[in-house]
Amino acid sequence: MYRKELKVLDCTIRDGGLINNYQFSMDFVKAVYRAACQSGVDMIELGKKLEVSDEYTREKYGRWNFCDEDDLKQVIDSCECDNSPLVAVMYDVGRVDVGKLQPADQSPMDMIRTACYVHQIDAGLDLIKRCKDLGYQTTINVMAASAAIETELVEGLEEINKTDEVDYLYLVDSFGAFYSEQVTYYLNLYKKHAPDRELGYHAHNNQQLAFSNTQQAIIDGVNLLDATINGIGRGAGNCNLELLLNFLKNPKFDVRPIYKVIQEHFVPLREEIEWGFNDIYGISGHLNQHPREAMKTRADAKNRDLCYDFYLNSMRDDVVA
Amino acid sequence: MYRKELKVLDCTIRDGGLINNYQFSMDFVKAVYRAACQSGVDMIELGKKLEVSDEYTREKYGRWNFCDEDDLKQVIDSCECDNSPLVAVMYDVGRVDVGKLQPADQSPMDMIRTACYVHQIDAGLDLIKRCKDLGYQTTINVMAASAAIETELVEGLEEINKTDEVDYLYLVDSFGAFYSEQVTYYLNLYKKHAPDRELGYHAHNNQQLAFSNTQQAIIDGVNLLDATINGIGRGAGNCNLELLLNFLKNPKFDVRPIYKVIQEHFVPLREEIEWGFNDIYGISGHLNQHPREAMKTRADAKNRDLCYDFYLNSMRDDVVA
Repeated sequence: MYRKELKVLDCTIRDGGLINNYQFSMDFVKAVYRAACQSGVDMIELGKKLEVSDEYTREKYGRWNFCDEDDLKQVIDSCECDNSPLVAVMYDVGRVDVGKLQPADQSPMDMIRTACYVHQIDAGLDLIKRCKDLGYQTTINVMAASAAIETELVEGLEEINKTDEVDYLYLVDSFGAFYSEQVTYYLNLYKKHAPDRELGYHAHNNQQLAFSNTQQAIIDGVNLLDATINGIGRGAGNCNLELLLNFLKNPKFDVRPIYKVIQEHFVPLREEIEWGFNDIYGISGHLNQHPREAMKTRADAKNRDLCYDFYLNSMRDDVVA
Repeated sequence: MYRKELKVLDCTIRDGGLINNYQFSMDFVKAVYRAACQSGVDMIELGKKLEVSDEYTREKYGRWNFCDEDDLKQVIDSCECDNSPLVAVMYDVGRVDVGKLQPADQSPMDMIRTACYVHQIDAGLDLIKRCKDLGYQTTINVMAASAAIETELVEGLEEINKTDEVDYLYLVDSFGAFYSEQVTYYLNLYKKHAPDRELGYHAHNNQQLAFSNTQQAIIDGVNLLDATINGIGRGAGNCNLELLLNFLKNPKFDVRPIYKVIQEHFVPLREEIEWGFNDIYGISGHLNQHPREAMKTRADAKNRDLCYDFYLNSMRDDVVA
């Protein structure tokens, strides 16, 4: 598959940080940034940009949850590269202070991605307008579309369509619940109700479908694709960047730096933290459930491999009539 | 996805046996058979039916490489079930003795699946005619279609189309090289040149696409689907049966016995043998290579995680101009 409009965004640090409380070392983040530069990916998301508070400290929640400008500069300056990726960070609605944001031309950041649930779309759009005023590229990442009531989702999409400050509208399969037919269904809904927005896609790998659903999104016209090195990310993880670059065949990409950083940094990391498909996440994805119960189960040595028990319990909890 | 014609064949023991030399214990095979019965799958393949020789012994190559009638009966008799799956075994062209095959009505086997490369199709069809004469259901599993010269493949398909003794013609992604677009491409070729044959699909998971490609095969009209419990199988393994049953939504299937046997038997087995996606298999699938080098690398403690080196070596070996 080769289409020149296709762009790839590496969100290794941002989505991977969800499983280690954003405690990646500076050296690790520099290695990921270098691999991204050398591989030719278009954008890299280096963390979240949340507001520090007494409760929400840098020590406890990790520096890549806050993305200080100095930290970002240190990463960016560590690798000279002709064709550097744009640097993105994520905003979570309700946990950021846009008043402190510097104009883009005085900042190491190029893009702010705003994550929100359907009921937070209006709040998200307010943030996005402020970011755009300051010169940033913007995205709105509407989480958990698979669990939204469709009329509310449609209303949100129509608001997004009116908001020209949104550069990319993301379909996000937060629960890893989509089959390819649902990717197509939701993208048709997005195209119908937000026809003026360029689209992005963000997968989760609960059912081993992150990569294939990303391909489906490409087929359905999406031009901005999220992926992470080795598929690292919350729970079952994401679309593997290396598989995606292999698929895209665009000569601007080079997969070798990605395999190199996997060999040197991700293989050792796998000894410390776990990510990727397993039976428990497969069940939570199939049942279109938030991954929190599955993650709790995987973190519990006694129950982590009891997929049958997890299935029965999930079905039992499912009865709410 | 619900289509009443869809049938599922569990090839856990046959494809899984490729990674442990068919050394599964009788108890393990009985547990798999019981799960298959209870889950409602249509067919189960319990091994290969090769010819014993001085060199090719039951001790060294495992009893499920030979599938003696007594062994099969022991498995089948261990579980009473209203709706037992058909019992299949696999024939490898050139390594079987069809002269010793009993008529189907005197045998525990219902189906013989003949595996062959494109250049062996005629030999395969000869075997199949003999099997059909003896009353068996038959399939022809044409291996490594992705590496065949298309004119030869087409010639073989046309022969298969003339052979009414073939109940199912399989598209087999032996190298795990297909993306969904190739599944569609090859199935169109199969439908064009063998329009009278019912089709089957057998995936490998090198690029995390076994399950999604099986879905694509369904969309493209295939009605017999191979899968294995927990995705066990050579190299990166196969389409996970539990994910497939979740997807199919057909009330005749019950996924719970599959999760139960995973929890009780496959989780312990994972401590002994390895299967499933990893970076090395991802590369060999992408490059449309026989998995033998990848399997050798995974079996080598020093090199098993050196995906970058494997990539460079594979690309180097690739230059044959």
